[in-house]
Amino acid sequence: MRSSSELVVGFDADDTLWHNENIFEHTHERYRDLLARYHDAATVDRTLFATEMRNLELYGYGVKGFTLSAIETAIQLTEGRISAEEIRRLIELGREMLAHPVELLEGVEETLAQLAGRHRLLLITKGDLRDQERKLAKSGLADRFRAVEVLSEKDEPSYAIVLRRHGVDPARFLMVGNSLKSDILPVLALGGAGAHVPYRLTWAAERAEPPQSGGRFYALESIRAVTGVVAALAAERA
Amino acid sequence: MRSSSELVVGFDADDTLWHNENIFEHTHERYRDLLARYHDAATVDRTLFATEMRNLELYGYGVKGFTLSAIETAIQLTEGRISAEEIRRLIELGREMLAHPVELLEGVEETLAQLAGRHRLLLITKGDLRDQERKLAKSGLADRFRAVEVLSEKDEPSYAIVLRRHGVDPARFLMVGNSLKSDILPVLALGGAGAHVPYRLTWAAERAEPPQSGGRFYALESIRAVTGVVAALAAERA
Repeated sequence: MRSSSELVVGFDADDTLWHNENIFEHTHERYRDLLARYHDAATVDRTLFATEMRNLELYGYGVKGFTLSAIETAIQLTEGRISAEEIRRLIELGREMLAHPVELLEGVEETLAQLAGRHRLLLITKGDLRDQERKLAKSGLADRFRAVEVLSEKDEPSYAIVLRRHGVDPARFLMVGNSLKSDILPVLALGGAGAHVPYRLTWAAERAEPPQSGGRFYALESIRAVTGVVAALAAERA
Repeated sequence: MRSSSELVVGFDADDTLWHNENIFEHTHERYRDLLARYHDAATVDRTLFATEMRNLELYGYGVKGFTLSAIETAIQLTEGRISAEEIRRLIELGREMLAHPVELLEGVEETLAQLAGRHRLLLITKGDLRDQERKLAKSGLADRFRAVEVLSEKDEPSYAIVLRRHGVDPARFLMVGNSLKSDILPVLALGGAGAHVPYRLTWAAERAEPPQSGGRFYALESIRAVTGVVAALAAERA
């Protein structure tokens, strides 16, 4: 039986442990270049985002859905004038994103090494199942985590299911991530704690207002500060 | 603590609980029609399958990866002469597959209803995470299963992880599915039992030779016969 006061720490993956949004940013730049003959960058960005949001329910998150939405948008914005060769290049761009090396964020290795010996760590992410598994394997961090959960959505019900599955009391759970919307707000709503470590870029669909300040929300500048938060929370009932 | 003699039954989903390969078959027919001006059906099928296999490591299983492979193959087979409008139709075909109604196979509802009260049932499937979750929700069968596992691959290591996670002794586990390769052989290798219920169609990548006959392998003609197998296995150590 686990101690009821054990503190469990959940980590988001993309843009929390390793770079991700910068890969999308790079692809977006090449996408704008490809369509520059037809439309300005703002129109391209706006139309692609609208397509992604329209397809989200059907495709879910991840690179494969993004690639399909990018092809669909390119056909729409060029009124069918885009060439098959250009579409082939979009498929290639998607494949490059999937095959991209995993680059850990600064401080991640040391922070996880410090925490993993003392606390149960869970990786809680969303997106394409195989893509997330591959990135975790490439990251060299897999051994740090007691369990890995790839979800199709990170909201209050899905966190509740995950915490129940792992026998975690929400009051003794801290979630660490770069997305207020997906990592922090749903966990706070369940009575857990949230440590927000922003990434340089935030995808528009992940933007949210920060919560009203309260004892369970920690706005951090670096993942290195998580060890201090964990020590404080662990001491609460030690 | 669970009884060590409890029998746990795992079910595959696509083509075991509901129709799936027939949806792909229908799409393949329309795909061959689209490319009929360029190549005969056998060449189209063979080239698409080769693309799917080449992309499998990167894309994993599921409709989104299939759609991307279908677009790539169409560009290749037409040497870039396929129109943007035709590619738009391929994207639409993929979307129709994802939005397709879930049609249960004959006997599934009754069989699960009979078993669920007496045994712990697990759903163990692979493919796109969101797509599988959506199909399960549409199926009306979600309540029958104690847990759902969407895997990126169904092989011996992944079954071992799932069984360990759920505290299941492989010797007291029966897996039911239409794929010898993904549902039966890896479970037999772990010391479990396998009940093979073939579907009318089998995707080439799922074909495998049946195991040497043995006490743990059951070749069934209908899912209705699973209740008899379960009763026999449950009685083994009752």
